[in-house]
Amino acid sequence: MNNLLILIQCKDSVGLVSNITRILAQHQLNIIAMREFVDEAEQKFFTRIECSGIIDNLSVLQQELINNLPTAADVRLVPKAEKSIALLVTKEFHCLADVLVRAHFKTLGATVKCVIGNHETLKDFVEKFDVPFYFVSHEVKSKADFENEITSILSNYELDYIVLAKFMRILSPEFNAQYKHQIINIHHSFLPAFIGASPYKQAFERGVKIIGATAHFVTDNLDEGPIISQQTIHVNHTFDAKQMAVAGREIEKSVLSKALEQVLEDRVFVSGNKTIVFE
Amino acid sequence: MNNLLILIQCKDSVGLVSNITRILAQHQLNIIAMREFVDEAEQKFFTRIECSGIIDNLSVLQQELINNLPTAADVRLVPKAEKSIALLVTKEFHCLADVLVRAHFKTLGATVKCVIGNHETLKDFVEKFDVPFYFVSHEVKSKADFENEITSILSNYELDYIVLAKFMRILSPEFNAQYKHQIINIHHSFLPAFIGASPYKQAFERGVKIIGATAHFVTDNLDEGPIISQQTIHVNHTFDAKQMAVAGREIEKSVLSKALEQVLEDRVFVSGNKTIVFE
Amino acid sequence: MNNLLILIQCKDSVGLVSNITRILAQHQLNIIAMREFVDEAEQKFFTRIECSGIIDNLSVLQQELINNLPTAADVRLVPKAEKSIALLVTKEFHCLADVLVRAHFKTLGATVKCVIGNHETLKDFVEKFDVPFYFVSHEVKSKADFENEITSILSNYELDYIVLAKFMRILSPEFNAQYKHQIINIHHSFLPAFIGASPYKQAFERGVKIIGATAHFVTDNLDEGPIISQQTIHVNHTFDAKQMAVAGREIEKSVLSKALEQVLEDRVFVSGNKTIVFE
Amino acid sequence: MNNLLILIQCKDSVGLVSNITRILAQHQLNIIAMREFVDEAEQKFFTRIECSGIIDNLSVLQQELINNLPTAADVRLVPKAEKSIALLVTKEFHCLADVLVRAHFKTLGATVKCVIGNHETLKDFVEKFDVPFYFVSHEVKSKADFENEITSILSNYELDYIVLAKFMRILSPEFNAQYKHQIINIHHSFLPAFIGASPYKQAFERGVKIIGATAHFVTDNLDEGPIISQQTIHVNHTFDAKQMAVAGREIEKSVLSKALEQVLEDRVFVSGNKTIVFE
Repeated sequence: MNNLLILIQCKDSVGLVSNITRILAQHQLNIIAMREFVDEAEQKFFTRIECSGIIDNLSVLQQELINNLPTAADVRLVPKAEKSIALLVTKEFHCLADVLVRAHFKTLGATVKCVIGNHETLKDFVEKFDVPFYFVSHEVKSKADFENEITSILSNYELDYIVLAKFMRILSPEFNAQYKHQIINIHHSFLPAFIGASPYKQAFERGVKIIGATAHFVTDNLDEGPIISQQTIHVNHTFDAKQMAVAGREIEKSVLSKALEQVLEDRVFVSGNKTIVFE
Repeated sequence: MNNLLILIQCKDSVGLVSNITRILAQHQLNIIAMREFVDEAEQKFFTRIECSGIIDNLSVLQQELINNLPTAADVRLVPKAEKSIALLVTKEFHCLADVLVRAHFKTLGATVKCVIGNHETLKDFVEKFDVPFYFVSHEVKSKADFENEITSILSNYELDYIVLAKFMRILSPEFNAQYKHQIINIHHSFLPAFIGASPYKQAFERGVKIIGATAHFVTDNLDEGPIISQQTIHVNHTFDAKQMAVAGREIEKSVLSKALEQVLEDRVFVSGNKTIVFE
Repeated sequence: MNNLLILIQCKDSVGLVSNITRILAQHQLNIIAMREFVDEAEQKFFTRIECSGIIDNLSVLQQELINNLPTAADVRLVPKAEKSIALLVTKEFHCLADVLVRAHFKTLGATVKCVIGNHETLKDFVEKFDVPFYFVSHEVKSKADFENEITSILSNYELDYIVLAKFMRILSPEFNAQYKHQIINIHHSFLPAFIGASPYKQAFERGVKIIGATAHFVTDNLDEGPIISQQTIHVNHTFDAKQMAVAGREIEKSVLSKALEQVLEDRVFVSGNKTIVFE
Repeated sequence: MNNLLILIQCKDSVGLVSNITRILAQHQLNIIAMREFVDEAEQKFFTRIECSGIIDNLSVLQQELINNLPTAADVRLVPKAEKSIALLVTKEFHCLADVLVRAHFKTLGATVKCVIGNHETLKDFVEKFDVPFYFVSHEVKSKADFENEITSILSNYELDYIVLAKFMRILSPEFNAQYKHQIINIHHSFLPAFIGASPYKQAFERGVKIIGATAHFVTDNLDEGPIISQQTIHVNHTFDAKQMAVAGREIEKSVLSKALEQVLEDRVFVSGNKTIVFE
């Protein structure tokens, strides 16, 4: 008796839920939890179904679902298996540490296969957790060379996601294209406010009373990919840019951890430049 | 082409969603939004389905659903119609005003049929909105007589819900029994902390750093009915009990308004002493 | 024995608090609450002091404070008196109603002298509260004429503040210049995100997971004046632009009410394009 | 030029701020930040003043302040020095890890001198951070013996605070009396709701829509000491007690970290069974 996760994304039409659930019942699969969403503007249907039951042949079930759904349906059957991730970091420890600690105590839902840093600052810390740390300097080399070194390391691992845990270099569209919807970034502002560099300095100068953090998938355009999760906290006139950064760290690690939880549990669909998150 | 809301509560079993959605599809009803929940501990299934389509005979559909569900299934078909409510108040205006303003501008989802007050303080205000106000003093009479007067007024209206909008009298179990799961109270604390009288005074004396408000259905036991919605805000050492009360008003009206929205849209199921709220 | 509020803004230097409190003690004024802030980057000092005591001659005390403070100190002595405000509205009721209800029940800290609308939609509602409503259409006339009509009405009242309670017209720099730091606007986004028109549409298209509202003083540049207060709430993929607008109303009225409370209690200093808010 | 922190708690009277700031000015101490609070009900005055300047003899300044304040004034002059803490744990890692990581990266404001566990579960993890871990089983011995073993270990260190980071044993009044206002506990509920054991189970059974966490000083009575900080998060009907516990961990570690920050920066005064927190 195993759990099975079914993720479907297709054109909307009448009777979809009925069709899908009939097929599952025929296979003696019991629905534990089911979430669905219809994007009426785009006429798209999304569902995430957790089932229990014994299923011999996943691809037979997958094909049967596809045959009974509108053309070009995206049907994924995900057996419950732990995911693998890599982290890219620079010098800041808080997001990295949060992820490593959760992984160490088996509450992350993923194994951290490696950490790559463009500074050596965090090497010793990472190695405490028996996770390999690779130092790849971005200095005295072209961006292409820098990224090729990273790609070369990543290619040694079977990875589900790459997490930019306060990685302070901008990756090229070419790099990102290799990992479509697989790179998750934490940006230290409430996007789309304060896109780009030094968001806390921008926030301080604008005199905002709230700061935020945003976890999003990386696409070609800096800080403009599909948003997964956001959080905000109140600040006031006594905060300078540095104090905003200190306060901001708490929500950065919190929002990244929330986004990772949702992504690693396959609760996030990407549709255009947005996400559907079945919390 | 009308919208129809289907609310089902029954014993859990395999194939429920499939059964229900098949029947809807056979009636050419298109599912717009569907939420379901299985209480695994209690082995109970709950669903709320919004459909579009033309349906001639609601009771035929209802019977067909009942026939295909476990015994004792509770199946309700709710045509989209505005609800009716009455408010009971004492002297405080904030919850009352919030509800009256929303009703006046047709954003409440209900008509306020009447307001009953055990003081006359709010009479003029209520009448600005062309809503009848009844003054029923609790003084120099028995509790039974007081409640009978209220019941007698309420019985003139067809009411879906009775809202205790800062009504500072405790109603008897006999009164409450007449309106099972129909009376909604706003309690000015984060229940179950500070049950009973003067919760802000209790909160001040305990030195809490957060205060709360709770909207709940009224049952026999004071402040112990099924909770619909709760909210909290931060306070600090500069707040005395009176300032906590002032700050608390904001969440009292906010949480009552949220609870009413959910109840009036039929998003709330009561199960034992808890609620399932399909937000 | 009356309460007196002292507001000081001046260049920072050593011994300011000592100087000020010595003078107050010499006048037998007892400090009830005192807040101060030093903007170290700008070398500016701000304080707000609530005193009790009997003071015969406010201008003597004011002059004595000025004489003992760095040159060009801004010293204001505010006797506790109710403020007067006017509201400008278009069609949306929620912020207007919230302010009118508080004023009606004497919890706003200000009298609403009049409401001006560029539509007649809210006329009947305003008049329920015995507040004059002036309809000034923006149609078939120049912007200058439109604003002159408004100014002409406002000039009949002694006003402390003008509140744009969802007033959907952009006022000219010339208009704004007449009321420096006296016009308070509620913008329906978390500024500086989504400046300008249709912020909820912009938010929907960007796929944000949080929306916000901002109360700020109006300056020449649209939506770029000093921020007084901000609030945010979570949304998700099920919200379209219209539903975001409905959800947003709750924080719009809440943040405006919070900002008004702070401004009307003289807790807000404007410094450059920022505010110091002594909560 | 060093920073100096002055903490004063005394009976309230007229001219206190003037007296104190005059003395500081005479010593050429410049006030960087000053917070004060008068508890009007208790007629008590509290202030926290950060100064910069050179001061030769702290005890002379302290005596001068005492001489100029009401009798029995509590005047503390705190040179900026890092604090020392010990942690008591059982099996849960999240609060412990958060504190250890902050200490490791020098952002905690304290050194962790040792960790004592009544289980060995967290030993390896603690030792990664080069912090000594002592295993003291509570089994097959009296409570007095168990506590004596702990006291004996703690007495080897000069400690400012002892942090119960999810330590699941109840300490005796005798133990607590040795460390008055020095023991900080994290309780996994929004106190005073759900005092005692299994608060998440209690919360689940009550059907609350919000859960909380509370950091407080430990006194004789379990979970009834002065509250330092509280936080809450929304839950819903889909959360069972175990899922509440998982969600609750995030605020437990967050609220403990916030409370520690405030305590370690000497921002917290204890007054009766409450705290004044100068944030």
